[in-house]
Formats: sequence, C-alpha cells, structure tokens
Amino acid sequence: MVVINLENPAVRSYMVYSAILALKLLSVSVLTAMNRMARGVFANPEDAKTHPKGKVKFDDPNVERVRRAHLNDLENIPAFWILGALYVATGPAPAWAAWLFRAYTAGRVLHTLVYAVTPLPQPARAIAFFVPYLIMWYMGIQVVLNFATAL
Amino acid sequence: MVVINLENPAVRSYMVYSAILALKLLSVSVLTAMNRMARGVFANPEDAKTHPKGKVKFDDPNVERVRRAHLNDLENIPAFWILGALYVATGPAPAWAAWLFRAYTAGRVLHTLVYAVTPLPQPARAIAFFVPYLIMWYMGIQVVLNFATAL
Amino acid sequence: MVVINLENPAVRSYMVYSAILALKLLSVSVLTAMNRMARGVFANPEDAKTHPKGKVKFDDPNVERVRRAHLNDLENIPAFWILGALYVATGPAPAWAAWLFRAYTAGRVLHTLVYAVTPLPQPARAIAFFVPYLIMWYMGIQVVLNFATAL
Repeated sequence: MVVINLENPAVRSYMVYSAILALKLLSVSVLTAMNRMARGVFANPEDAKTHPKGKVKFDDPNVERVRRAHLNDLENIPAFWILGALYVATGPAPAWAAWLFRAYTAGRVLHTLVYAVTPLPQPARAIAFFVPYLIMWYMGIQVVLNFATAL
Repeated sequence: MVVINLENPAVRSYMVYSAILALKLLSVSVLTAMNRMARGVFANPEDAKTHPKGKVKFDDPNVERVRRAHLNDLENIPAFWILGALYVATGPAPAWAAWLFRAYTAGRVLHTLVYAVTPLPQPARAIAFFVPYLIMWYMGIQVVLNFATAL
Repeated sequence: MVVINLENPAVRSYMVYSAILALKLLSVSVLTAMNRMARGVFANPEDAKTHPKGKVKFDDPNVERVRRAHLNDLENIPAFWILGALYVATGPAPAWAAWLFRAYTAGRVLHTLVYAVTPLPQPARAIAFFVPYLIMWYMGIQVVLNFATAL
C-alpha cells in the first residue's frame, strides 16, 4: 500500500519543487511589468496614464516575448502540479521521483531564461521545453497504467 | 467521515481521468507545433530560422485556432483538477462521481477535436464546452455547500 | 506532526475558498460570451454565423479587456490552488490561514470587478492584484523554508 504522508520523501520533494515552480511562474508577472514600465507599453488606457510616456500597444516585441513565455508556463506548470501529485501516489522510488522533479524544475527555469530574459538561438529553448515535457508524459502514462482499473 | 485514500474508487477514478486530461492538454502543444511546422509560421525569429520557409506571423488562421483551443483548455481543465479533488472529498457515490468524470473527459476531448482538429459548425463545440462546464459548476456548488461552515 | 484531514479547519477553509475561486474563474467565461453576443464579435467564423450581426474580430476593446482579466486569473488562481494546499501542510494557525485565504479570494474577485465589469482608474486594479500576489509569495516562501531539506 502506498502511504501518502508528509514523512514520505517523494511527497516532500514534490512539495518543495511545486512551490519553487509556482514562485517561478509568479516571477514572470514581475518580468512583464518591468518590461512594460521600461518601454511605457501597456495593455489598458488606465495603466498607460500612470506612466509619463505610457501608451497602449499590443505588439511590442519584448513585452510579447515575455507574455509568450508566461503562456507557455501556464500550458505546462499546472499540468506538472497534478501529474506530479498523482505520480507520487503510484509509489515511485523516492530518489528517482526527486530527480525527475529536479530535472523538471531546472528545465522550466532555463526555459524562462532563454525565452524571456536572454533570448538564445534554438535549440536552447527546444531542449528546455522537451525535457520537462517528456517527464510529464512519463509521469502521466505511469499514472494511467497504475490506475487503469478505475477507467 | 469521508475517507480519502487510494482504495476509495471515487479517488481512483478522479486520478485516472485527471491524468488523461493532463495528457490531452499536453497533446495540444504537439498539435500547435505540427501546424507551425506545416505552414512555416512561427512566433519567434529564432524559431523561424530553423525552417526552410519559416517566417514570423501572428495571424495564421489554423495556428490561431489551435491556440484558442489550447487557451480554452487552460480556462477549464485546471479548474477540473481542483474541483474534482474537492468534490471527491464531499463523499459522493463513487459510481456517480465516476460518470461525471467520464462525461467531463469525453466533453473536453471532443472540444479539442471539433475546435482544433476537424472544425465543425456550431453547436458542436458549444455542446462539447457546456457539458464539462456545467459539471464543474455542479461540483463547485456541492463543495461550497458541504464546506460552507468554513467560510 | 501536521495532520491533513477534513476535520482540520485550515484544510476546510482552503477547500471552500479554492472552490469559490474556481467558480469565479468559470464565471469569466460567461462574461466573455455575454460581451461577444452583445457586440456580435467572435473569434471563429462558425460562431459568427450563429448571430444575426456576427463578425470575426480580434480587437474589440471590451471583449479583449475581459479576455485579459481571464488570462490574469489563469496566471494567478491555479498557483493559489497549489500554494494554498502546500501551505496548509506546513501547519499554520488555522485562523491565520483562513484570513489569508479570505483576503486572497476578496482580492481576486475585486480584480475581476475593476478590470472586466466596471473598469476603474489605477491603482484600483494594482491593489486588487498585489494583495493576492503577495499572499502567494508569502505562502510559497513558507513552503520552501519548511520543506527545504527535501531539495
């Protein structure tokens, strides 16, 4: 029987990396705001009024790049939160689970860096995308196989 | 007292359908990438350079359609993950909960198919949207009523 | 030892406010649909056909404003669902946790109202954004400190 409690090291590892990923996701909001302020580029007239050279503009390349990185986070990180929790419930070896969570987190942090902070040529972003992406598929397939009798 | 453990069939049902929904959500990333590659339409200059006829373009109708389907998933599937978990904690009849989760999952899979894979006239997408949507409202109201003393 | 069960008042508080936030998030879909119907402004040709004066248009200011409010919810509310659950697992004083969850929920409801229902001048939306945002950072840092040995 799999025991899901706070003494289980796989559970603790899931918890700390999920929190780090949440804070990383939240940091992108600050990055967007900093880019908007630096360029005076806003999405709403009431925001533009707060800045001496503020204007409403939807196609600033730097702001839009950060917004795409943000959206990519939303397409991936919440899926990790659920898949990671369900995967831990399949009772993986804690050390193996911890390395998957570390690699996932490192990949997503690098993704933001090479997409929105210092844009790098491909395949930098592709690698930073696919390592976490494949870890999610692996975890998801393990969960479906483990609980397939509940379909 | 409601027992939330991995022997509870409602819990197991929630787990397997949540994982399927996560993998379905992740599949849309592949669908977007395939559409971008087939048309040579990319969002970033560093991506366009990897394709013989690649260009940066933000209004390709096929790519944007897949992106709208993706965003609609983000507006709905993470809400299922939390509401489904909380709903299971209200102690529903497991067979009833399982049918709600099956209908939800079927609706969201159909939504992607009729939106992004083979666009169909309305009300195909509206039906595929509203069945899961109403299931979420039903589950959410049950949770609020059940835990209203904690407000 | 922290006990995570349904008798723990911090758990119950987390559950009811998470459900309310989910229903709030789902309500924005209705708000978008109402704005689209009132203006006959749609994102897909098959939708425009269902409306006597329907057209495909991507820059209606009112519809886009609601869509930005929706995206801001997606950037914040799922992060609350995970951080709130993990924070409860650190064993906070239940009354303190409940007030954080109440303030978070009130902030996000106000954010939608001043962004998408009745647009107000800044700093109305900034305040409604930053109170929940800072609560998430506080909870996330508590979780990382509490489970740092699992890194």
